[in-house]
Amino acid sequence: MKKITILFLFLGIATLIQAQQGNFSITQAVTGQYRELSPKKYYMLSWMPGTNNYTYLDFTIGKYFIGDISSKPAKEFLSLDNINPALEKAGMEKQGRVPFFDWKDKDNIIFTVDTQYVTMDIKKKSVITTLPFSSLAENQDYNTTSGFLAYTIENNLYVTGPDKKVRAISDEKNKGIVFGKTVHRSEFGISKGTFWSNSGTQLAFYRMDESMVTEYPLVDITEKPAVLKMTRYPMAGMTSHHVTVGVYNTVTGKTIYLETGEPAEQYLTNIAWDPADKNIYIAVLNRAQNHMWLRQYDATTGKFVKTLFEEENARYVEPLNPVYFIKSAPDQFIWQSQRDGFMHLYLYNTDGKVIRQLTSGDWIITSLVGTDNKDQFVYFQATKESPLERHYYKVPLAGGEITKLTGEKGEHDAVFNSTYTYFMETYSNVDVPNVHMVMTTAGKEQKTLVRAEDPMKGFNMPKMTIVEIMAADGKTKLYGRYIEPIRKDSTTKCPAIVYVYGGPHAQMVTNSWLGGAALWEYYMAQKGYAVLTLDNRGSSGRGFEFESVIHRNLGIAETDDQMKGIEFLTSKKYIDPERIGVHGWSFGGFMTTNLMTRYSKVFKVGVAGGPVMDWKYYEVMYGERYMDTPEENPEGYKNACMLDKAKDLKGKLLLIHGYIDDVVVPQNSLSFIEKCIKNKVQVDFFTYPTHEHNVRNMDRVHLMQKVTEYFDTFL
Amino acid sequence: MKKITILFLFLGIATLIQAQQGNFSITQAVTGQYRELSPKKYYMLSWMPGTNNYTYLDFTIGKYFIGDISSKPAKEFLSLDNINPALEKAGMEKQGRVPFFDWKDKDNIIFTVDTQYVTMDIKKKSVITTLPFSSLAENQDYNTTSGFLAYTIENNLYVTGPDKKVRAISDEKNKGIVFGKTVHRSEFGISKGTFWSNSGTQLAFYRMDESMVTEYPLVDITEKPAVLKMTRYPMAGMTSHHVTVGVYNTVTGKTIYLETGEPAEQYLTNIAWDPADKNIYIAVLNRAQNHMWLRQYDATTGKFVKTLFEEENARYVEPLNPVYFIKSAPDQFIWQSQRDGFMHLYLYNTDGKVIRQLTSGDWIITSLVGTDNKDQFVYFQATKESPLERHYYKVPLAGGEITKLTGEKGEHDAVFNSTYTYFMETYSNVDVPNVHMVMTTAGKEQKTLVRAEDPMKGFNMPKMTIVEIMAADGKTKLYGRYIEPIRKDSTTKCPAIVYVYGGPHAQMVTNSWLGGAALWEYYMAQKGYAVLTLDNRGSSGRGFEFESVIHRNLGIAETDDQMKGIEFLTSKKYIDPERIGVHGWSFGGFMTTNLMTRYSKVFKVGVAGGPVMDWKYYEVMYGERYMDTPEENPEGYKNACMLDKAKDLKGKLLLIHGYIDDVVVPQNSLSFIEKCIKNKVQVDFFTYPTHEHNVRNMDRVHLMQKVTEYFDTFL
Repeated sequence: MKKITILFLFLGIATLIQAQQGNFSITQAVTGQYRELSPKKYYMLSWMPGTNNYTYLDFTIGKYFIGDISSKPAKEFLSLDNINPALEKAGMEKQGRVPFFDWKDKDNIIFTVDTQYVTMDIKKKSVITTLPFSSLAENQDYNTTSGFLAYTIENNLYVTGPDKKVRAISDEKNKGIVFGKTVHRSEFGISKGTFWSNSGTQLAFYRMDESMVTEYPLVDITEKPAVLKMTRYPMAGMTSHHVTVGVYNTVTGKTIYLETGEPAEQYLTNIAWDPADKNIYIAVLNRAQNHMWLRQYDATTGKFVKTLFEEENARYVEPLNPVYFIKSAPDQFIWQSQRDGFMHLYLYNTDGKVIRQLTSGDWIITSLVGTDNKDQFVYFQATKESPLERHYYKVPLAGGEITKLTGEKGEHDAVFNSTYTYFMETYSNVDVPNVHMVMTTAGKEQKTLVRAEDPMKGFNMPKMTIVEIMAADGKTKLYGRYIEPIRKDSTTKCPAIVYVYGGPHAQMVTNSWLGGAALWEYYMAQKGYAVLTLDNRGSSGRGFEFESVIHRNLGIAETDDQMKGIEFLTSKKYIDPERIGVHGWSFGGFMTTNLMTRYSKVFKVGVAGGPVMDWKYYEVMYGERYMDTPEENPEGYKNACMLDKAKDLKGKLLLIHGYIDDVVVPQNSLSFIEKCIKNKVQVDFFTYPTHEHNVRNMDRVHLMQKVTEYFDTFL
Repeated sequence: MKKITILFLFLGIATLIQAQQGNFSITQAVTGQYRELSPKKYYMLSWMPGTNNYTYLDFTIGKYFIGDISSKPAKEFLSLDNINPALEKAGMEKQGRVPFFDWKDKDNIIFTVDTQYVTMDIKKKSVITTLPFSSLAENQDYNTTSGFLAYTIENNLYVTGPDKKVRAISDEKNKGIVFGKTVHRSEFGISKGTFWSNSGTQLAFYRMDESMVTEYPLVDITEKPAVLKMTRYPMAGMTSHHVTVGVYNTVTGKTIYLETGEPAEQYLTNIAWDPADKNIYIAVLNRAQNHMWLRQYDATTGKFVKTLFEEENARYVEPLNPVYFIKSAPDQFIWQSQRDGFMHLYLYNTDGKVIRQLTSGDWIITSLVGTDNKDQFVYFQATKESPLERHYYKVPLAGGEITKLTGEKGEHDAVFNSTYTYFMETYSNVDVPNVHMVMTTAGKEQKTLVRAEDPMKGFNMPKMTIVEIMAADGKTKLYGRYIEPIRKDSTTKCPAIVYVYGGPHAQMVTNSWLGGAALWEYYMAQKGYAVLTLDNRGSSGRGFEFESVIHRNLGIAETDDQMKGIEFLTSKKYIDPERIGVHGWSFGGFMTTNLMTRYSKVFKVGVAGGPVMDWKYYEVMYGERYMDTPEENPEGYKNACMLDKAKDLKGKLLLIHGYIDDVVVPQNSLSFIEKCIKNKVQVDFFTYPTHEHNVRNMDRVHLMQKVTEYFDTFL
């Protein structure tokens, strides 16, 4: 269940809307926090390679700035004013918007203009090289070291490079076989299908044969007549795809395949090259997802070399990060595992022996940054202070104490310079909208770039509190975000809405600006609704036991916990216990339907978006991790099946589903509707004809207005 | 736009529901008029061939009765009590429900038991012959004269007969070519694909090549995963199918094809055999539907013989009835045409010369029954008394005065005995629930079989009036059905609902029981809504000019007229002009959306079912008759395009669409929704996942409850 948060950058849309003071408009409630109500912030934070010069993009004026660690302010260094003349001189068209770029080295940046990769000298402000690619190209993967570019067209993979020659790595006519794209439905940390070696001269890539996978029919209604869009969708318990890994060598022009062997339905995850570009490491996982083998393959011959170690768990093993090699000791790497119950770092050698566990404790690593030039310290982001926060730390590779690098409470992001002497950090918390600063890795504040003012100043801002609620197990602390309703007077009773996600891989409540909420929740509070979001057991950020308690029993512990949130709400005298609503999307749509049917006396109104209604209609990778197969776990599937619960629905429930949702297929909502009809139960439905699993772009305003009106009408 | 009335026989469902007195339940409102609130009536009214003995089925007790023209009551003659022993004796299984039957002759009846045609001697009560057919067979066409049976399996045609040998008439592997099924989307009066000759030894059949027609993807969500159901759907202006007519001779075993020639996209309509089984007559219509040729083909050689005559019209020609040959003069036939502006009868000879026009006047023939044994009189049903009524008449074939055969005002149906001396008639009017009687063709009442009591006795029955309203053209009289609201008190203002169809081929208001209304309209009146249905210009029963005024401009005259209905409603002091709703299905869904957007200040709430939203998404046959192609009539298509009007929607509009609607494809509603979203206009939607163009069976109760709740909530 990827893409639970909607990363639709409204940045690209001209902010024509003037901020209205008082209450938010529905448009502001949906897009405002990314536009006119966003705290001042910069984008594209980076360090010029090999220097102590940082750069950033001030998007509002379309200019890049550069600064150093001195107290002097950063100065303008790149904008359309100097990019466009360089492009025109090189015979290219002027751009209307400043491009995003990657550093090639300290003198050169790389960005795309239409269908060309452009290397530009930032001192001379001139185009050095261009690399054209097909206008049909997708999944571009440019290697800044070698200048080679991999991309896909339809289901085939191509490579071009400095010689501008196009090499077809595959020439597959069978559309059921796909090259160079993400596989395994982007579970297991997979987000792409090509992996350049360190030197950028060899390319590891995924080949996925999904011709044996059943197709789900989706329909594009924008053509006359409507056009079929078949999508290979392996449903829980059904035949799944077969993935292998090829290696293309740009020097020899040869492609070999790694001997990953049988069974063909295994998962090949977290591909990594060793520092010498000789071997490829893959975390191989069985279909049952309870056994992982970290395996080494020879990148030249494709031969299986050895299994370094294995991990097993009665519930599931979920490798999410590739091995990270130590620069000074190429036979050592860091491995991330939650084998002790929490995601921690382990130093390994390539014999597969643990040298030492680098971190431990009842908190988790949320991001491994890397090691410094001398491999003295390992840098990482973690929840060590609190599950609500994200801080940066370093720990000696040789073992020892952890040092915290970031200061204030909240959610921190950091970008380190290449020598790991400085980092640019960005943070916010419930009181601080946004700060950008430069820090030393000794933990000293060097320079503040931005300390944003409260963008909500002058608005009728509802009060938000992070609350602690005891889970239904009576022993686990849960975190919630409670937004108080703005009440007309002190006597009126208020309705309450639970906004819920509730599934694994997501944490809704954080000590960050707005508490992690969508501004819509505040908008609803302005309208007089109390709004609560509670991260129940099963959600992320709290370790393996907390998240995996749902194994084989989706929807039970999660809803039990949500009812504790209801107790919290109804303990407030000004909340009307007869007017409780619930809204969620995806897993949150499943939760919404579950709560509406399991606790039909409690919830009066619900809006379930893109809901899973029967886990047998969900895909193999995510679905079987938590539920095993329908054959292995009939009781779990039955208990989690909303179709059987349609008859219990008493309140008003609006289902919303993207008409071309290829993540949670429309069959889910439609099957529930059919059950409601057969049980003579009324239910409401809406569909967004051109949207997939989430309603994106400005259409999202329409969506949230619909959701709002539903609560306004019926709650 | 077929199937505008929902002929779902709830008869088969046990009537467990006890009639509640007072107001109707929603179940009664939807199914009651076919079940416990149906006036007493008989089914399967027929005459024993060559006799004056009539028969009928009393469905409530599952027994057939037989009577004669004397005053003696009919007596039981057939039921499971004697059918089942006969079946068991012949080695067949007992039946649980009395079968429907056809007469073979006065001694033998034919009916189906599972997958066999059974001929039973009604005197001996024994099975005479059986003819088995495949359990996959569809479109069975049994000829009682020869005992041959035609049927289809998938896209191929088969014939079996007394020798029980199965002949494959076609063996087509290409699923885009279909044999023996209805063609041209069942327009032009076509309802089947096989046509036995008089002797039952030759079979004319349709062959349709639709492999060149674009497919519309529909999705069946009842399988895991959902399964694609592609349907060939030629949209207005696009490539259409090619139809030809084959003739299979059971004696020679040969099949020939009629030389119907080019252009391939013509319409071959109203197939008829001449009395000698030598020739086949076809009304051939061009794709533009403004030119018809009545053509004769040699059934043995397939050769085109001649064109008898042609009909042309600047708007359209619509042949709906095959030639009817005169028994005593096999070179003469009756032709039905609205060439003089009204559907009338013409006596022709096979040279293509009109002998005489048999009927004329500003009324229409609604059904040609036939001529008597001596061909003295032609019997027909017509609107001669009033467009609201249907009576039976006879006119001398030699020309002369028309004699009315049926008496009371209302809608009459008649079944004549083979000598045309008697007929069984069924009638009702706004005051008479149902009457069955036996009449002489001299127009004398012979015997009353049933005079049903008012089934609504004891119910709080709202008052219904047939009203006359002047059309928007200021000169055409329209008929409406007005159901007065049952008001709580004399001061409360009432909301009003317009129930609308408004398209050609349909008449909603008739002088028949309930005025032609669905009982739901009375249910709504019980709830306090005024309910009006108005047959605007463009509807049927009033002649060519009245119906065809909409040509190239669908939705204009029709809505203009409906606004006259609004004037009628708002002239009533007890109706709140701020609370007007509208509901319709199919063409009525188009009308509903049209009214909601064109008169957005008048209509507060609408429910549009299976609406056509853009005529370019509708099929060629019906669509181009009224609208020509999008290329020929861009302005007409634009004016009738609801997509462009989405931005004008102000009120609450609920769209409902069958998820597998293959008549008005879901693309219509979905495209309108998409336009609403893009225009930031809220609209509501619901879908019935397993239903096609209409929501049938008990799910219809769910549908009408949804419609009702929508009005209750928002109007």
